[in-house]
Amino acid sequence: MNFDLRLANQVLARTPATLDALLRDQPDAWTQPNEGPETFSAFDVIGHLIDGEETDWMPRTKIILAQGPDPRFEPYDRFRHRARNKERTLNSLLDEFARLRATNLETLLGWDLLAEQLELRGQHPRLGAVTLRELLGAWVVHDLGHIAQVVRVMAKQYRDVAGPWIAFLPVLTDHETPRS
Amino acid sequence: MNFDLRLANQVLARTPATLDALLRDQPDAWTQPNEGPETFSAFDVIGHLIDGEETDWMPRTKIILAQGPDPRFEPYDRFRHRARNKERTLNSLLDEFARLRATNLETLLGWDLLAEQLELRGQHPRLGAVTLRELLGAWVVHDLGHIAQVVRVMAKQYRDVAGPWIAFLPVLTDHETPRS
Repeated sequence: MNFDLRLANQVLARTPATLDALLRDQPDAWTQPNEGPETFSAFDVIGHLIDGEETDWMPRTKIILAQGPDPRFEPYDRFRHRARNKERTLNSLLDEFARLRATNLETLLGWDLLAEQLELRGQHPRLGAVTLRELLGAWVVHDLGHIAQVVRVMAKQYRDVAGPWIAFLPVLTDHETPRS
Repeated sequence: MNFDLRLANQVLARTPATLDALLRDQPDAWTQPNEGPETFSAFDVIGHLIDGEETDWMPRTKIILAQGPDPRFEPYDRFRHRARNKERTLNSLLDEFARLRATNLETLLGWDLLAEQLELRGQHPRLGAVTLRELLGAWVVHDLGHIAQVVRVMAKQYRDVAGPWIAFLPVLTDHETPRS
């Protein structure tokens, strides 16, 4: 499947509503547990996605499009959300994520990017030269991966409850060594 | 986390809306591809979940609660949906799944099951004796696992697009040997 900004937008625009349907008003028993130390709960994931809106995808897109003398991205802080969201409710984070995402997509689509702009490059602190197409493609996959993570982490809370079914429920044994 | 029917319902009741937010009106490019032979596309997953409503979770619950002389479950046909849904649109399947699930949960909650009823057993064709608690727990995990599958299958369509980010996007390398 080739990259197409309209198709990418079809995913990016739906992520807030998807997570909202899954998580709004959900009891803490489902949203606070994680998969182990340094891994994310559902609550953490929404914070991490907000961090992405504020510090990752669009700021890096702007660096690439500006084509300045030093198109290097700022390193990304995977744990920025921890201190940021200490006093927050999950519902308020869902609201904030939806607002930030809508604004970012409006901006992105408003630029009417040309195919050749998607080939412009920036400098990722660990990956080296990357194109705007790759960055926007990674944004889509990143969303989907974190939805997968949220449901996986929730599922694992019922690992013992589901008992003998574990053999038929691969989500329970995905990421036995967690990567968040 | 212990099994609690209200908490289980908090997940089961949200699955239709979660998948609706992700998939309604989504172009076929996102909903038709799968992970390889004998694996499910997003379209297939909704059909499989409908099969679960019609032939798996509630029929088996009823067999357990009836405590008849032979509490054996019917074997489950993982590919029933293929012939059933040949002419269907994804949107119509999303509608049907939501209706079936709502009806099933209304019935289930209407029974006001007692804790001791959750310990009643049926006979699974491959797993042997299983309790109602385990069956209902497996239902929750099954939903979450199939949401994870849908987003994983979608993500993999952008494996090449995301290019160098693959190292940071574990969803792209989950289930390299697909299990659906």
